[in-house]
Amino acid sequence: MAEYAESLRKLIEEFKKLPGIGPKSAQRLAFHILEVSAEEVKKLAASMLEAKKTIRHCSVCFNLTDKDPCEICADKSRETKVITVVEEPKDLIAIERTGFRGLYHVLGGAISPLDGLGPENLRIKELLKRITSKVSEVVLALNPSTEGEATAIYLHKLLQPLGVKITRIAYGLPVGADMDYADPMTLTRALEGRREVNV
Amino acid sequence: MAEYAESLRKLIEEFKKLPGIGPKSAQRLAFHILEVSAEEVKKLAASMLEAKKTIRHCSVCFNLTDKDPCEICADKSRETKVITVVEEPKDLIAIERTGFRGLYHVLGGAISPLDGLGPENLRIKELLKRITSKVSEVVLALNPSTEGEATAIYLHKLLQPLGVKITRIAYGLPVGADMDYADPMTLTRALEGRREVNV
Repeated sequence: MAEYAESLRKLIEEFKKLPGIGPKSAQRLAFHILEVSAEEVKKLAASMLEAKKTIRHCSVCFNLTDKDPCEICADKSRETKVITVVEEPKDLIAIERTGFRGLYHVLGGAISPLDGLGPENLRIKELLKRITSKVSEVVLALNPSTEGEATAIYLHKLLQPLGVKITRIAYGLPVGADMDYADPMTLTRALEGRREVNV
Repeated sequence: MAEYAESLRKLIEEFKKLPGIGPKSAQRLAFHILEVSAEEVKKLAASMLEAKKTIRHCSVCFNLTDKDPCEICADKSRETKVITVVEEPKDLIAIERTGFRGLYHVLGGAISPLDGLGPENLRIKELLKRITSKVSEVVLALNPSTEGEATAIYLHKLLQPLGVKITRIAYGLPVGADMDYADPMTLTRALEGRREVNV
């Protein structure tokens, strides 16, 4: 019984190791590689190696960066009194898109005992070191999940004695959503977070 | 507004070019690359370049191969009287799994005017050249789609004058399927392909 030639089989195996890529997708990706120009394949391979070589964590905020400290931490025009705590670099990028001009701290995940992730696996010690008298507010921008919730409670307990103002971003109805499609948890959060209307 | 560092942004862009990979998957793949060992990334990059370099089409059957003629065409123990015509190399591999021991011809697709694919874009001339007096049967194993159908009709017309026996694989209920879940087209095919029961 003939199978794919060895180098093609190997390539499919390599693709299968990637997250979210099953056997069928791996096969499709491999055929794509054989179809496009050698130039294109070289570009993809080079960009993987280049990213792997140049990208590291900022030693201050732990964002992904190619220089240390990162672009944001080195930016003199930023408001340094406010630190927004996020789980992952992609959450930081999401907040950046809102036009927020403060600083960040990337935890590297959330407390999740099921995944074996405790507070000691997150960059919490590093966060505490950054809370000096110059910092007036820590914004917790964690995911609205059990893990994000647990992490927020843990951080709140830890930071409160330091006398810094601790806030959390609001959880509620997303803009454009239909109220009758919202799940009860979201509506509960939206009600809890209600504010007085100031006319 | 800070974005991802350049080499990371580039990597995400490269991943987005792959089939079936949207912006979110591209981001996830890029983070995966940053997470795994440099060794792993090098293996993936090398296997892409290696496959691209070594894999080509067999000059006889147009299967993907790292030697020419391919393993199957070069196999002296194969039944050379029967040629099974398939659209793509992955269809060939599927037929191989059944234990079929004849030869193949890979068309490189099916006739699809909407995609700008006419008979001249398929390896039909090359197939005709292979139909010598030594070939007794051509099995059309094309997809049960409009394109596969059109290609089968076209090939049938073309091959009939050559006096070779032309057959098509059966289309019907897949093994293990529930009859009441089968779509009408499949059931139509199953009825058309009915055979007398020989006890």
